[in-house]
Amino acid sequence: MTLPDLDPLLRPRSVAVVGASLTNPTNVGSRTLHQLRRFFAGRTYLVHPRGTGEDTVTDLASLPEIVDLLVVAVPAPAVVPVVAEGARLGIRAALIFTSGFAEGGAEGAAAQAQLQRIAAETGMLINGPNTIGFMNLHDRTLATFFLPPDIELPAAGPVAIVSQSGALATYIDEMARDRGIAPGWLVTTGNEAGVTVTDCLAYLVERPEVAVLAATSEGMRDPQVFVRVATRAAQLNKPFVFVKAGRSAAGRAAAQSHTASISGGDEVFDAVCRQYGVLRADSLEQALDWLSVFQTQRRLAGERIGLLTGSGGGGVMMADVAHDVGLDVATTPPADQELIEQWIPSFGSAVNPVDVTAQAIASGVGNYRRILQTLVHSTGFDCVAVGSGLRGPQAVEVAEKVAATYLETDKPFALTWYSTNQDSRRIMVDAGVPTYQDPTRAIGALGALRRFQEQLGRITEEPVRVPDRARAARARTLLGDDPALTEAASKSLLGLYGLPVVQESVATTVEGAVAAAEAMAAYPVAVKVLSVDLPHKSDVGGVRLGVADAAGVRHASEGILADVAERRPDARIEGLVVQQMAPSGVELVCGMHRDPVFGPVVTVGLGGVLVELFADVALCKAPLTRQHAQSALAEVAGGRLMSNSRGISPDQADAIADIMVRLGDLAVELPEIAEIDVNPLIVSRSGVVAADALVGLS
Amino acid sequence: MTLPDLDPLLRPRSVAVVGASLTNPTNVGSRTLHQLRRFFAGRTYLVHPRGTGEDTVTDLASLPEIVDLLVVAVPAPAVVPVVAEGARLGIRAALIFTSGFAEGGAEGAAAQAQLQRIAAETGMLINGPNTIGFMNLHDRTLATFFLPPDIELPAAGPVAIVSQSGALATYIDEMARDRGIAPGWLVTTGNEAGVTVTDCLAYLVERPEVAVLAATSEGMRDPQVFVRVATRAAQLNKPFVFVKAGRSAAGRAAAQSHTASISGGDEVFDAVCRQYGVLRADSLEQALDWLSVFQTQRRLAGERIGLLTGSGGGGVMMADVAHDVGLDVATTPPADQELIEQWIPSFGSAVNPVDVTAQAIASGVGNYRRILQTLVHSTGFDCVAVGSGLRGPQAVEVAEKVAATYLETDKPFALTWYSTNQDSRRIMVDAGVPTYQDPTRAIGALGALRRFQEQLGRITEEPVRVPDRARAARARTLLGDDPALTEAASKSLLGLYGLPVVQESVATTVEGAVAAAEAMAAYPVAVKVLSVDLPHKSDVGGVRLGVADAAGVRHASEGILADVAERRPDARIEGLVVQQMAPSGVELVCGMHRDPVFGPVVTVGLGGVLVELFADVALCKAPLTRQHAQSALAEVAGGRLMSNSRGISPDQADAIADIMVRLGDLAVELPEIAEIDVNPLIVSRSGVVAADALVGLS
Repeated sequence: MTLPDLDPLLRPRSVAVVGASLTNPTNVGSRTLHQLRRFFAGRTYLVHPRGTGEDTVTDLASLPEIVDLLVVAVPAPAVVPVVAEGARLGIRAALIFTSGFAEGGAEGAAAQAQLQRIAAETGMLINGPNTIGFMNLHDRTLATFFLPPDIELPAAGPVAIVSQSGALATYIDEMARDRGIAPGWLVTTGNEAGVTVTDCLAYLVERPEVAVLAATSEGMRDPQVFVRVATRAAQLNKPFVFVKAGRSAAGRAAAQSHTASISGGDEVFDAVCRQYGVLRADSLEQALDWLSVFQTQRRLAGERIGLLTGSGGGGVMMADVAHDVGLDVATTPPADQELIEQWIPSFGSAVNPVDVTAQAIASGVGNYRRILQTLVHSTGFDCVAVGSGLRGPQAVEVAEKVAATYLETDKPFALTWYSTNQDSRRIMVDAGVPTYQDPTRAIGALGALRRFQEQLGRITEEPVRVPDRARAARARTLLGDDPALTEAASKSLLGLYGLPVVQESVATTVEGAVAAAEAMAAYPVAVKVLSVDLPHKSDVGGVRLGVADAAGVRHASEGILADVAERRPDARIEGLVVQQMAPSGVELVCGMHRDPVFGPVVTVGLGGVLVELFADVALCKAPLTRQHAQSALAEVAGGRLMSNSRGISPDQADAIADIMVRLGDLAVELPEIAEIDVNPLIVSRSGVVAADALVGLS
Repeated sequence: MTLPDLDPLLRPRSVAVVGASLTNPTNVGSRTLHQLRRFFAGRTYLVHPRGTGEDTVTDLASLPEIVDLLVVAVPAPAVVPVVAEGARLGIRAALIFTSGFAEGGAEGAAAQAQLQRIAAETGMLINGPNTIGFMNLHDRTLATFFLPPDIELPAAGPVAIVSQSGALATYIDEMARDRGIAPGWLVTTGNEAGVTVTDCLAYLVERPEVAVLAATSEGMRDPQVFVRVATRAAQLNKPFVFVKAGRSAAGRAAAQSHTASISGGDEVFDAVCRQYGVLRADSLEQALDWLSVFQTQRRLAGERIGLLTGSGGGGVMMADVAHDVGLDVATTPPADQELIEQWIPSFGSAVNPVDVTAQAIASGVGNYRRILQTLVHSTGFDCVAVGSGLRGPQAVEVAEKVAATYLETDKPFALTWYSTNQDSRRIMVDAGVPTYQDPTRAIGALGALRRFQEQLGRITEEPVRVPDRARAARARTLLGDDPALTEAASKSLLGLYGLPVVQESVATTVEGAVAAAEAMAAYPVAVKVLSVDLPHKSDVGGVRLGVADAAGVRHASEGILADVAERRPDARIEGLVVQQMAPSGVELVCGMHRDPVFGPVVTVGLGGVLVELFADVALCKAPLTRQHAQSALAEVAGGRLMSNSRGISPDQADAIADIMVRLGDLAVELPEIAEIDVNPLIVSRSGVVAADALVGLS
């Protein structure tokens, strides 16, 4: 996979702006040129037909150099000619602010298609149209118009944020700044005629000054690049936070088969995030909550959290949240308890949550500082969360102590500050203390860090599969012209890919069925009608279970043919299937379907009637590793399928994971197969076996 | 149920403060007296041995009147004598600030027990000790020490808040004020030697000036009062929000039986909240989010939400949240679309979410105002959510338009304001606009209102059951001295309470079992060992299923006795049970256990092996109505059990609800029964029947 080098676009050495006004400083182009000229170290040019003066030219061809980046802020009809001219001159990147393209009707869409053609034909990097540009604070490059004209150059922090939506980016910038998050990069992509959110992420993940990635988008244009970015982020130990809008729209994408109906597109995106370690946030606010902790670049050495509160009830709430996010409210080491006890009243607690009581704070903040220090330096805790809130001048005093103590440690730390005193809040935010208004958010952010670190070792690159052409060719002989394979053909196909299936035999007559059962010698058997017209054969009397002997097979076969003839006289009957009765055990469903975005997806969940009742199916993008499959399996039934004594054993889980990997390989090798539904996949003491299967073609 | 009249405590006509300092104005008593004297219309007295001057006396006995309320701020050792003296003089209420009682060791606990005795013996209303008091703004009574000395009298809003924890109450007060929530009542209860959180709620729910109740507590001392408050709140159309700390602690309360292990105490509290319409918030922040909407006292006329945004991506996020909380993102009526379209660029959207685009706002706020008005006055929407955010002076302009439009309508309305401009935020908060930083919270609050209204009609008072003594006496003849009943006795007991159970017969010999089966004439049958020592009889070879005839029963009976003798030679064998084979169908589990707080609880969930895998059991406090049972059933499998085509029918649901109600009656009538586990309860075309049951005694 070759990804574009975005240096000319995002780290230009020189910039020309077309569309800045000579007279109106509030025009989009003028505002951008103003911000560029305030801080940018490279050369900037104004291109204007009536322009005169230094670094000003009347047309692109008169530029004294081939600039890296062309900023386009001309009216919509002029955009394509300007960009085409720039490309012709050899300018390698264009940033197009102008709106009214694909988002504004057929004419706009046609113009955008022309821009896409220019990008494809010339390799020009096109950001936009309908973008608000970007800020690269590391290179002091503010290529955007949304900032106040007199804004000071914000500090360049380790966070890089990419947003398709410009308006959301301005919200994010505003809210981030208020929390002391200073994104070193903030890039918007707008209509994405050329460069996409994932292109930018793929570029930024490799930048050494970037330690944390965050992005928001409605769509997902390059799923492969997305997976690549996620694995690179994990390899480089960089948290990658994603906020995807459009969950409800995705939910509407109802699927046809009963497997697909319970795993629409958004569940697939969610599953890919888990599979490749992307931390999906529910909201912009939650993403920013997490970034406050991630930008500190502190890491957990373990899962023990020390809690400090001035309120017993608050401490209990903090402990609840810590438990929810998988942190361990460990007991304060005895030596530290002794230390703390000398600074708190007898009705406080040094155990954990440490409750200093409101009285202890009121009686002076010196001891509060000592207690805080004891907690952050304790060998008993890997991170610390503090909840506090005061009115008046004491708020500032406490804030100073918290900030100073925060800087003494490199343990992850999160503060809940129940105070609207802005001065005190500012002191802590400026010191870099992750500061929140509720422990669900403060400790939730530490929980996101825990989750990031916990999954880090598991994330590997997407597995590469070399198709087995001979096997694929053999498989294709089993696919007919009907939209679905018969059960027998479905099982043969699965058998070809190494899936264990129950023993069975097909007969075209009642006597043939009896002979087949006798030859199989595996009573009790099941007898089923074979017909491509009857996908739900038990509903029409086409199934007899637990048949004990030859006479029984004869009786069952006759009964089936009579019942089916009566209820579905139109159905084409191909014969009868005699089948070894599957062992009894836990019934799973395992399958494959194709997501419009991410392609083949392997599913696993509880089987039988329950698959629909619970809609509790875990997913994996194919191709997949055994570890991916195991992780998905570990999600089924809220983790209870794997951990419960009545669930499945590690050996059985291995066998199921192997089946899932094989289903993924099959999906990659045979794109004409639209979906597979193995239901039930029976997990018993004697192993794992597919008792029934349905394969659908596209 | 008689509840105390808290007027003397919370609406006193006169107050005496003991423990205010003559020289130190920052002492707890002095601060309280100061706040009382600033605003309170009744008489206030300072009681101090060396005190002189107007409204100052040297001891309680010298008070010129029997005051309503005694405020106690003396050191811990002096508290009991002062309170006892007050009670002796006939003072009806005491507010005790002093700490160091039950929370501070054995001596404190003993002193608190003395206070409890005084309360019990004299009927004195005791708030505290270790409380920070209360604010009753309607009567201008600030009986607390935590407020700054120069605070202005806050406005008295329709919200009443009760908090056991004083420190949390100060946080709540601070955060609420910042959001424009002005609680008319804020009451804390501390150690609750007398008055509890639920006592206060029971008093406040009846107050005409209270329109919204909110409370937070770690424990739940009066579950009956809690249920009473909840039903009164519903009857009076007052939302009741509760934040309960201690979820994780509750989770630790591991239960013994396998039913109880999946429904610990916190799940019971959660279930009671749903059953009686209490809106349980996950955090203080979420509770305040909801109160912002509730305090407006606006109501939804339907579920259609109009969304207004300046960002396409933001609109998608808003739609996602609206969908999550059950609001309908209905299409803007065509006439309103036409209106809106004239004020937005062609690349905006008037459909819903209405996207005015950043450009439309930038070009002047007049049109923005018109669009807002169109939305709030549209007949197509029952509520409106707006997302916006601007920097600089335009933020104030937009805020003024939003505030003005908000006041033009009485539809529920929530604003996401992505701006840190405090002036603009203040304008809206002061106008009463519920204002948030993220749409998950803004629209989440409208969702809480929807949920409140949706459940309002369903909440009725707890049903009253008159025990059937004759039935209870008959039932008691079935209970032996063993901790668990045999299956046969368990079924007889259930049968006595009208539960349908499968037909069965007990035999003491193999031949007796054969005869029983022949007499029953309901082949196939199951044969099972009968032994109080073998609760899990299938694990020791004690069960044979699907036995087809007399010979089979003989063979099965011999096999069972041999297997059990080999595997559990110690077990006392009482005989063999011959049982009609249950029909096949959906298997549920239905049961009863006793919660340490709420008493008998009826459970229902998916049965068989899955009950442990899924831990998906819905609960109801007993006694219960059929509607309670139906609501619980509707929660099973995320609602899919009732709505799915492979789930259960309305008739079947009726039958199950009837069984649940009967189990609840049984639990109320027979307190010696600790738990009941009906597993499986089989739901088939032929009805609902208990196939197996286990009854445990306490």
